[in-house]
Amino acid sequence: MGKIDIQQLDDVANRLRIDSIKMTCAAKSGHPTSSCSAAEIVATLFFNEMKFDKAFPKNPSSDRFVLSKGHACPILYAAWHQAGHISTTDMMNLRKITCDLEGHPTPRLDFIDVATGSLGQGLSCAAGMAYAGKYIDKASYRVYCLLGDGECAEGSVWEAAAFASYYKLDNLVAIVDMNRLGQTQQTMLGHDADTMAKRFESFGCYTVVVDGSNVVELLNAYNIARQTKGKPTAIVAKTLKGKGIVGIEDENNWHGKPVPENTVEAIEQHLMNKADIAGTFQIKLPVNDVPNVQLPIGHIKMAPPTYTLGDKVATRQAYGAALAKLGDACSRIIGLDGDTKNSTFSEMLLKKHPEQFVECFIAEQNLVGVAVGLQCRDRAIPFTSTFAAFFTRAADQLRMAAVSFANIKCAGSHVGVSIGEDGPSQMGLEDIALFRAIPGSIVFYPTDAVAAERATELAANTRGIAYIRTGRPACPVIYSNDEKFEIGKGKIVHDANKPKALIIGAGVTLYEAKKAADKLQSENVEVIVMDLFTIKPLDKDLIVKSARRAENRVITVEDHYQAGGIGEVVCQAVSDQKDIRVHSLFILDVPHSGPPDALLEKYGISAKCIVDAVHQFIHPPN
Amino acid sequence: MGKIDIQQLDDVANRLRIDSIKMTCAAKSGHPTSSCSAAEIVATLFFNEMKFDKAFPKNPSSDRFVLSKGHACPILYAAWHQAGHISTTDMMNLRKITCDLEGHPTPRLDFIDVATGSLGQGLSCAAGMAYAGKYIDKASYRVYCLLGDGECAEGSVWEAAAFASYYKLDNLVAIVDMNRLGQTQQTMLGHDADTMAKRFESFGCYTVVVDGSNVVELLNAYNIARQTKGKPTAIVAKTLKGKGIVGIEDENNWHGKPVPENTVEAIEQHLMNKADIAGTFQIKLPVNDVPNVQLPIGHIKMAPPTYTLGDKVATRQAYGAALAKLGDACSRIIGLDGDTKNSTFSEMLLKKHPEQFVECFIAEQNLVGVAVGLQCRDRAIPFTSTFAAFFTRAADQLRMAAVSFANIKCAGSHVGVSIGEDGPSQMGLEDIALFRAIPGSIVFYPTDAVAAERATELAANTRGIAYIRTGRPACPVIYSNDEKFEIGKGKIVHDANKPKALIIGAGVTLYEAKKAADKLQSENVEVIVMDLFTIKPLDKDLIVKSARRAENRVITVEDHYQAGGIGEVVCQAVSDQKDIRVHSLFILDVPHSGPPDALLEKYGISAKCIVDAVHQFIHPPN
Repeated sequence: MGKIDIQQLDDVANRLRIDSIKMTCAAKSGHPTSSCSAAEIVATLFFNEMKFDKAFPKNPSSDRFVLSKGHACPILYAAWHQAGHISTTDMMNLRKITCDLEGHPTPRLDFIDVATGSLGQGLSCAAGMAYAGKYIDKASYRVYCLLGDGECAEGSVWEAAAFASYYKLDNLVAIVDMNRLGQTQQTMLGHDADTMAKRFESFGCYTVVVDGSNVVELLNAYNIARQTKGKPTAIVAKTLKGKGIVGIEDENNWHGKPVPENTVEAIEQHLMNKADIAGTFQIKLPVNDVPNVQLPIGHIKMAPPTYTLGDKVATRQAYGAALAKLGDACSRIIGLDGDTKNSTFSEMLLKKHPEQFVECFIAEQNLVGVAVGLQCRDRAIPFTSTFAAFFTRAADQLRMAAVSFANIKCAGSHVGVSIGEDGPSQMGLEDIALFRAIPGSIVFYPTDAVAAERATELAANTRGIAYIRTGRPACPVIYSNDEKFEIGKGKIVHDANKPKALIIGAGVTLYEAKKAADKLQSENVEVIVMDLFTIKPLDKDLIVKSARRAENRVITVEDHYQAGGIGEVVCQAVSDQKDIRVHSLFILDVPHSGPPDALLEKYGISAKCIVDAVHQFIHPPN
Repeated sequence: MGKIDIQQLDDVANRLRIDSIKMTCAAKSGHPTSSCSAAEIVATLFFNEMKFDKAFPKNPSSDRFVLSKGHACPILYAAWHQAGHISTTDMMNLRKITCDLEGHPTPRLDFIDVATGSLGQGLSCAAGMAYAGKYIDKASYRVYCLLGDGECAEGSVWEAAAFASYYKLDNLVAIVDMNRLGQTQQTMLGHDADTMAKRFESFGCYTVVVDGSNVVELLNAYNIARQTKGKPTAIVAKTLKGKGIVGIEDENNWHGKPVPENTVEAIEQHLMNKADIAGTFQIKLPVNDVPNVQLPIGHIKMAPPTYTLGDKVATRQAYGAALAKLGDACSRIIGLDGDTKNSTFSEMLLKKHPEQFVECFIAEQNLVGVAVGLQCRDRAIPFTSTFAAFFTRAADQLRMAAVSFANIKCAGSHVGVSIGEDGPSQMGLEDIALFRAIPGSIVFYPTDAVAAERATELAANTRGIAYIRTGRPACPVIYSNDEKFEIGKGKIVHDANKPKALIIGAGVTLYEAKKAADKLQSENVEVIVMDLFTIKPLDKDLIVKSARRAENRVITVEDHYQAGGIGEVVCQAVSDQKDIRVHSLFILDVPHSGPPDALLEKYGISAKCIVDAVHQFIHPPN
């Protein structure tokens, strides 16, 4: 590395600074100071270290860059501008509704793999990409993740570091831009780079502390990282927030604020005080050693289910069986679990295809983050599983997965009070709401084993975020193996000539509804029972048509809280209809431990409760 | 410590083992092996180290014990049995619906402060208790938290450790029961106690590695912890899962399973092979040095708001103003924030009462966990704040706060697309659903500054979990300072003689609804506009009454996704009414960055969109 190259990199870092300052001024909002601290880091990565294809940013063989501190995106946009991929006009439209250079990065941009902006999530995604590179693609691409120091307070960073070192991801480099200042005050560690380094070291990373504004030290650190085998590298780069902006550098109260517009010229002159010899850059091209993969989404054929009607099988078990069979059909189906694989039955994939399974241990945030990383650039179709309740631990990661337009599948087992004795901490009672709130998601709630296998197959074959809600208890198979299931289509499982009400359930409550229907029939009260199969999209047509036939009375019953559950979505679906009335049964209070049947009764969703509700609906008390 | 005392503690540890084994056998489920590894840890804590009041377990002066590995509760129940607080009959009713000795601990038991069972959460709660002890009560009680090694994969553990060391919580002791085995396989670190210790050390704890089945080493470690000043202590205790159970000890596949019933006698004989000299124990009594505090909940008087009608004030700013005034009124009101205090305006409390504010940095899981710890035994009324979107990061902690029946308040700012340019990662669009799903919660959505101040005051004065949804933009004050607000009572803010529709909004959409009403009026279409104030509980009476007056047409409009939002809850509220129809406007897709007004328009919740919806509702197209 000659003196000229170093000067070039210094110069380009300052150009990135100036562009960051100018574009945030134009937008009248944004984060120039968090960008400026990272200028040398980004300049050295993009214009010396990383191998990538600026003409085809999603080239699967390219090195990956994840900006975990997403608010510093001006510096990233500036880098792609320097690379020639973004025009000056576009850059100056930062944060406008017509421009995809948004306030925080999203994959609406072709050079962004994962959305960031909720802090502490990038390293998990980067670890997922590195896992794909090392173990699935077995290719040479490397993954660079730039973190802020403030976000290292997020536990998810340490989940990711532990995962990365456990799986020896030596193709992963985390760089902490340690600029000392958070949004409102100094971070917990300030400029104590040694302690930060000790943390990463104790979590299994090789660590290097550098002056983050010194391009030679940075290049040297990347070089060390490339030579480090068997563990990821963490580079702790000491920097200054607002570096290079006189009067703002290293000062508090400059987070997320453009500089005063009338100071821009002076800042530019100060930064470009020396001859700008940067010129244009030879960006290193990737080695095209990634296997050619086309995910057969839409065409993944699973061997059909082979159950016997009436046999008792838990839907979680059927999920595991389907996942293993999908693994036969497609080697890029990857199972991930949070040390619950014998409960969720994802271990059935592990047993059949160990190379298609990633144990993520008890760290659900990282579980989802790694899955998001794996699916980038279509390297895999990840199926994550844990108890439904514990997906709430990753609610923010799931929210961001939606902003990333990710293709991940989640299977949550042990839903509702029907899990019984383990008690409320283990009961998934808000998972339907959680997954329904994801734009474009599909929410499956299969009732029996056949439906659960088909839900898993449909999830694999449909891009986007899909959730499969599975149950703990073994329940009778009610569908024949050749029953056809479609997304957004429910089933009438109990019909009648002169029905007085439509009962809608799914999972355990469908069985209760069927029992209730039998009981009511013995009392000469006829009802229709409908199995939803998917809660999102909802089979509105069948609901409305069936309700009309059933004297406009609908009863919903679910092993879930009210908010965002089946009752509410059905109410909304019929809200444009006159006459149809809905009565909803759901879990109202924090449940207690106890036998499943007793809990269904106590919390008002048993067959008996349904029978009572139907009677009350038909003959309301005065 | 004499030889006899040591033998006594060994004996009592084995008694705890036997009881754990017996009660899980009786329950036919539960976690004897995870209990047995911790037997000596629990025996030494309860019968030698901790000072507590077994007759009054919630004595505020007592040392606290948090069982973060909640599934090991049999050993804890056994300890309280040994202490004489639980009868043998009760113990043998473990996990029954009639017995509060649930599958995982909940505060339905008088000796439990916080529910556990979702792993990795206990240390944050314990840190909150220790913070209260050191800085609020300024008392001598100490806090002991028992963690599993598997759960140390959860990032929240490290958030808590960083917090505890930053605040020098030397009254806090974390003990890791390092039994090597998770649910389905060996943990990431196995028995590598040194690495575990290095992690805690790098996060600022004084660390000691001990043989966790050796009572002398344990007592010695507690002693060191008591003498360690300025930092918390972490004791890494190497243990064996199922310790003492021949054929099961240190073996895989024994997680969460009772031992075969016919082996219990042999196990008991083996464990009690020596003379049991335990006898009864002198439990150390607490030093009663906690100040006498009675939280004036229901009587906290806030100085009234002093706004001028029409002035533009953001509800987040009014939240900060109210919080500061509540701090004047009650010194046990504590504000906590995740390094967003100048955005949420919680810094107004910090500026006025620095001793009533705890900066929790960018670690929202720990933010909520610490708040739950602070409120235990009525030591404080915690108000947490961050961006609404980032409360999703603590969704699991909030779920568990509900199981803990905690008294915490959450204020989420920057809701919806109306935040504008920062983009979707920063927009709270599922927060209503998140907080509505908490049993017994109150969800405030104040529209103007006066309402926001009153919401904050009402939250302080009502036990339980309350959420205050605040907005970013400055909006006109519409209520006079003496307007009365009640939980569950909405307001008609625009009325009419012959209304054609009822429009329901809150926050920014209420202003849009008012604008729409004015526009419609100019076209001779009259509507009613209702401000919800609380979404939970919902003012169903006013909605139904107003809808009836408005030709049974309701339009809801919200800056939130559909699932669990205002539209769905209103639909459910009117679902028992014939004729009322509801049309809901909400955010359907992942939003883009842009100016707030343009986003309201683009995503269909602007005044213009409301006007169009009213027209379509009245004159549906064919």
